[in-house]
Amino acid sequence: YLVSEMESLHSADIAQILYQLNTAESKYIIDLLTAERAADVLSEIEEDLRNEFLKNFTGEELASFMDHMDSDDAADMLNELSVKEREEVLSSMDNRERANYILELLNYDDDCAGGLMAKELVKANVNWTVQRSIEEIRRQAKKVEKIHTLYVVDDYDVLLGRVSLKEMILAEDDTLIRDIYVPEIAMVHTYQDEEEVAELMQKYDLEVIPVINIQGKLLGRITIDDIVDVITEQAEIDQQMMSGISDNIEESDDIATIVKGRLPWLLVGVLGGLINAQFMGLFEDSLAVIPILAVFIPLIAATGGNVGIQSSTLVVQALANSNIQDSNWERFMKVTSVAFINGLLIGGLVFLFVFVFFGELKLSLVVSIALFTVVMIASLMGSITPLVLDKFDINPALASGPFITTTNDLIGIAVYFFVARMLLNI
Amino acid sequence: YLVSEMESLHSADIAQILYQLNTAESKYIIDLLTAERAADVLSEIEEDLRNEFLKNFTGEELASFMDHMDSDDAADMLNELSVKEREEVLSSMDNRERANYILELLNYDDDCAGGLMAKELVKANVNWTVQRSIEEIRRQAKKVEKIHTLYVVDDYDVLLGRVSLKEMILAEDDTLIRDIYVPEIAMVHTYQDEEEVAELMQKYDLEVIPVINIQGKLLGRITIDDIVDVITEQAEIDQQMMSGISDNIEESDDIATIVKGRLPWLLVGVLGGLINAQFMGLFEDSLAVIPILAVFIPLIAATGGNVGIQSSTLVVQALANSNIQDSNWERFMKVTSVAFINGLLIGGLVFLFVFVFFGELKLSLVVSIALFTVVMIASLMGSITPLVLDKFDINPALASGPFITTTNDLIGIAVYFFVARMLLNI
Ligand SMILES: [Mg+2]
Ligand SMILES: [Mg+2]
Ligand SMILES: [Mg+2]
Ligand SMILES: [Mg+2]
Ligand SMILES: [Mg+2]
Ligand SMILES: [Mg+2]
Ligand SMILES: [Mg+2]
Ligand SMILES: [Mg+2]
Ligand SMILES: [Mg+2]
Ligand SMILES: [Mg+2]
Ligand SMILES: [Mg+2]
Ligand SMILES: [Mg+2]
Ligand SMILES: [Mg+2]
Repeated sequence: YLVSEMESLHSADIAQILYQLNTAESKYIIDLLTAERAADVLSEIEEDLRNEFLKNFTGEELASFMDHMDSDDAADMLNELSVKEREEVLSSMDNRERANYILELLNYDDDCAGGLMAKELVKANVNWTVQRSIEEIRRQAKKVEKIHTLYVVDDYDVLLGRVSLKEMILAEDDTLIRDIYVPEIAMVHTYQDEEEVAELMQKYDLEVIPVINIQGKLLGRITIDDIVDVITEQAEIDQQMMSGISDNIEESDDIATIVKGRLPWLLVGVLGGLINAQFMGLFEDSLAVIPILAVFIPLIAATGGNVGIQSSTLVVQALANSNIQDSNWERFMKVTSVAFINGLLIGGLVFLFVFVFFGELKLSLVVSIALFTVVMIASLMGSITPLVLDKFDINPALASGPFITTTNDLIGIAVYFFVARMLLNI
Repeated sequence: YLVSEMESLHSADIAQILYQLNTAESKYIIDLLTAERAADVLSEIEEDLRNEFLKNFTGEELASFMDHMDSDDAADMLNELSVKEREEVLSSMDNRERANYILELLNYDDDCAGGLMAKELVKANVNWTVQRSIEEIRRQAKKVEKIHTLYVVDDYDVLLGRVSLKEMILAEDDTLIRDIYVPEIAMVHTYQDEEEVAELMQKYDLEVIPVINIQGKLLGRITIDDIVDVITEQAEIDQQMMSGISDNIEESDDIATIVKGRLPWLLVGVLGGLINAQFMGLFEDSLAVIPILAVFIPLIAATGGNVGIQSSTLVVQALANSNIQDSNWERFMKVTSVAFINGLLIGGLVFLFVFVFFGELKLSLVVSIALFTVVMIASLMGSITPLVLDKFDINPALASGPFITTTNDLIGIAVYFFVARMLLNI
């Protein structure tokens, strides 16, 4: 009953069911499936959890799954095993061609084009006819799950171009590939960063992109479904960076991992707070004379932080979209204008509030002038920091996080006490 | 010369060149291109900038472009024009079938499946042979740029399943579609949210998904390239929400738009700061007696804010991935343990620092106990708020932004003064 139930489910759905079960139960389920289906399900299981699953199977069982798995997924999975286990699995595989594919893929870094590509693809020699190519597709098709494009290569396997399946169907049988292939083709080198690949595929609306080596030889292909995962993961990492989490951690990670991911940036914030305390210690006398000064510190700090994050996020996004169209001068003017308007509105509002509720003109002036200045400075800081980080090849998203907040806290409070000292003669 | 230069470029690259030119120059460039090519380039231009471009062309010129444009892109473009202009363009189109397609698509909201789908697709009746279907593909293929799958429908156009082009090529000519089509198929309704579509396509690794109406009739298809754009846009919106920017604004928007996007959340922060000031006003006497208390306010506020954002971001991401595997109790324990460890480490560190630099045992105790408590409370708040927002169908990412920071500032300072009053007897 279970078996027939599962046959009607997509592998991704079965993987999701396995998450709810304990390891013994999930092994039982996987054992019920055919090796091909089990391979599919294992490919769908999330990286972080897969390692646990794999421990339940012997090298030979894993080998029988890998016989049916796309080479990219199999390589990812083997990467999580020890070198010894890897060799055991690879040597037990029946599908020798795939074992060699996987062995080759193990050489590439996880986050470059080589680490994303699969070896399975269909290609045709430029001198073949459509007829012969279709026969070749029929022959190769068994091992390739989805065929998008027929790649066209020369006698040395150098990638020349492509023919879409649609064109193959539309062409006469005796047409030469040479006469119908499209020579220009987007391609990537094995060493290119996964984000470059994603950008290229997104820009040109590609479903698949071929991967070549330095000599131009066709080595594999990257499909858009894996790139969608790269894009989603990258968005998550950026979000975490913005919220002061290093590494890519998840709620489901263990406590030590989560602490390790969260503590460093908290400490940066604490360090900033302590420097702030030291700095304000210099003004202890003023605070003793005018204790009401202290009550506006959170307002100043929070506003500086918020303005800084807003500014840097916009710049980070513009950088990510390679979408900086105006000249530097125009952008500077715009940032300044926005800050000026926001600063004026916030300053004015707070002036009224403080005057009404605390009834002191000079205090109101100090707070609102300080706020206006903090908004101006934080906007500029927030706009410039990502550009500077980007120049030094540091991820500019770093500037949207605790770093900016901490810096702005420091600057904001310095400005506040400076203005107070000027206006209140303390 | 320019013409031949541009023929070798991808439309996406031409679009990017146009961004650098003024309107007269870009009109000149587009006029040089064939209508088909111009249509491609216009489809690639970013939404925010396209409106400006369109103003340069007459209704008839636009109509000639739309004759060659995918119906989804054409509908998006027409959506930016006034109703009168739309009718003018539609009535001037030569390609009447496409004009009808576009007219239908104008009915759908921008952010639902209907607003993403294109009408162009190839379908075959379930009773046809492979031979007849291939002829039909040949006939229909002219109007469909990329063919992924042949959709299989019954006599009433109700979607039954699909056959991939690969299977068509592998099958014999006289095979019936009925015997080779795959009945189970992921599909979406016109009214489904774009993010649901994205989730489905990502989960099942689809390159294209068919769109049906309530009766199950096949209406169109959505391709992964448009979903990649949805995913990217959504990530940007979430980032902006985290940094306190409402609406989806860009650096290139005008000043009023940027102010409008940024001011609301700044005001929330300001309001929080003012409430804080009011609250601390109650402690003015204590501050007068022990002014040194004030210098640790930024430390308390910053730490509470940082911890809160970290916690909420992890929960928001787990919600987005539908990836909450542990039970509520386990998750509560984990959040609490992480907070306990971080709070202890931070509290201990700060205790030492304050004791060494300020030399007062009681003050050190007040600050470190307050910090520990703030870390615990902010972690819980940050973990619970997104869940509550999600329950009420509010985007939980809201909880990673100024809202959490402001609340935590308030709570942090209240805790601080409460602890101070307890320990210092003020
Ligand atoms: Mg990466
Ligand atoms: Mg890999
Ligand atoms: Mg695109
Ligand atoms: Mg596009
Ligand atoms: Mg397109
Ligand atoms: Mg893959
Ligand atoms: Mg992860
Ligand atoms: Mg803050
Ligand atoms: Mg949306
Ligand atoms: Mg649309
Ligand atoms: Mg996927
Ligand atoms: Mg996959
Ligand atoms: Mg489209």
